[in-house]
Amino acid sequence: LVLNFVLAESALELVPRELAGARAVVADSKRRGKPPMEILLDRSFHHSAMGKLKDSEKRGRPDLVHVGLLSVTGTPLYLDGKVRVYVHTWPDMVVELAEKTRIPKNYLRFRGLMEDALGGSEGGELVKAYKSTLSDLIRRRVRPDEVTAFSIQGETAKLEDVGMQVAAEKNPCLIVGGFPHGHFSPTTLGVADRLVRVDERPLEAHIVAARLVYEVEKATDRLND
Amino acid sequence: LVLNFVLAESALELVPRELAGARAVVADSKRRGKPPMEILLDRSFHHSAMGKLKDSEKRGRPDLVHVGLLSVTGTPLYLDGKVRVYVHTWPDMVVELAEKTRIPKNYLRFRGLMEDALGGSEGGELVKAYKSTLSDLIRRRVRPDEVTAFSIQGETAKLEDVGMQVAAEKNPCLIVGGFPHGHFSPTTLGVADRLVRVDERPLEAHIVAARLVYEVEKATDRLND
Repeated sequence: LVLNFVLAESALELVPRELAGARAVVADSKRRGKPPMEILLDRSFHHSAMGKLKDSEKRGRPDLVHVGLLSVTGTPLYLDGKVRVYVHTWPDMVVELAEKTRIPKNYLRFRGLMEDALGGSEGGELVKAYKSTLSDLIRRRVRPDEVTAFSIQGETAKLEDVGMQVAAEKNPCLIVGGFPHGHFSPTTLGVADRLVRVDERPLEAHIVAARLVYEVEKATDRLND
Repeated sequence: LVLNFVLAESALELVPRELAGARAVVADSKRRGKPPMEILLDRSFHHSAMGKLKDSEKRGRPDLVHVGLLSVTGTPLYLDGKVRVYVHTWPDMVVELAEKTRIPKNYLRFRGLMEDALGGSEGGELVKAYKSTLSDLIRRRVRPDEVTAFSIQGETAKLEDVGMQVAAEKNPCLIVGGFPHGHFSPTTLGVADRLVRVDERPLEAHIVAARLVYEVEKATDRLND
């Protein structure tokens, strides 16, 4: 088993050109000593500038992406090299972690790492970023047996059962939304073979991610016993 | 059931007096525009000053505490008001979250919140900090049926079994270490009724916390069915 874990439409991107001159962005840019378009879009600092942005409510939450990644990369399954992690972003970039790569738990270091990767810095052996739609990522790079996406709009299923199904596959792919509000886009829904709901209420990405990996891990252990 | 979750000996504290004049601390203090003893001790910035600090390897990691808290406070069990969260810190302070209180997912906001609470700011209805040893917290405040602490030094147990035992109690208490390296102090070991190991390798606090709450949640659902 290699579990492909995709955080999709994630709220992780550099400040887009249209906001580069906005007051909140310029102030943040000065404070940080970095050009506006080389800093991460972050609602905590740029909220006042983000109102007119397309899909504004789904963007500018690198903190969610950070916690989501930590909840996967700290698991025994990941540490054993059995999970591949991809962050697909709202503007169709993909940030891919090399096998077993740990990411900084300190948010400021994580932010710097993502700014470098998304800005095209060389030398990113452990974390590389490239332009790609979610469809291309799935079809050309991941090529999974089956794609399961998690959404409050999906059919109710038990996480345990999902874990057992997934653990029986060779190259499954799980998609969790990397954004704070709203639902998957039609494009994302289009790449999913099934859409599953695992709780009565919408759960945060890092909670779903942690539970998914854990259930797959337990099911794998059971299969190997 | 009310599950008491304690992050013990956590690497969360304001800069101690002995480091207030250290170069790395003063530089950070100037950058942030806050007096040295009102900022969180953070190895990411103060590493060079921390060498001679007692128990240095267990201190100055507020990022771990942040992620640990998020992994609990995002769970359905917590959102239902069934989990009480206490952060006991290395210098014997306790930060207590009021029922269902959500903490900022943005690390910089979390840092500000903790600096205010630990600095004794008024108005902290949702997050309050007070001086307390772990023993006092457990004996006088939590008064649990049973205290289970998690450590690589404990006896091997399955998380599922721990979850079932705990879910059958009225007021259980779980203790997870809130520090990056090393083991529980003798004092912490002294308050635990049992010491349990749930994986072959040492796992990060947030991973153990997420799995524990999840297993208790599942066991609770089973008992209620």
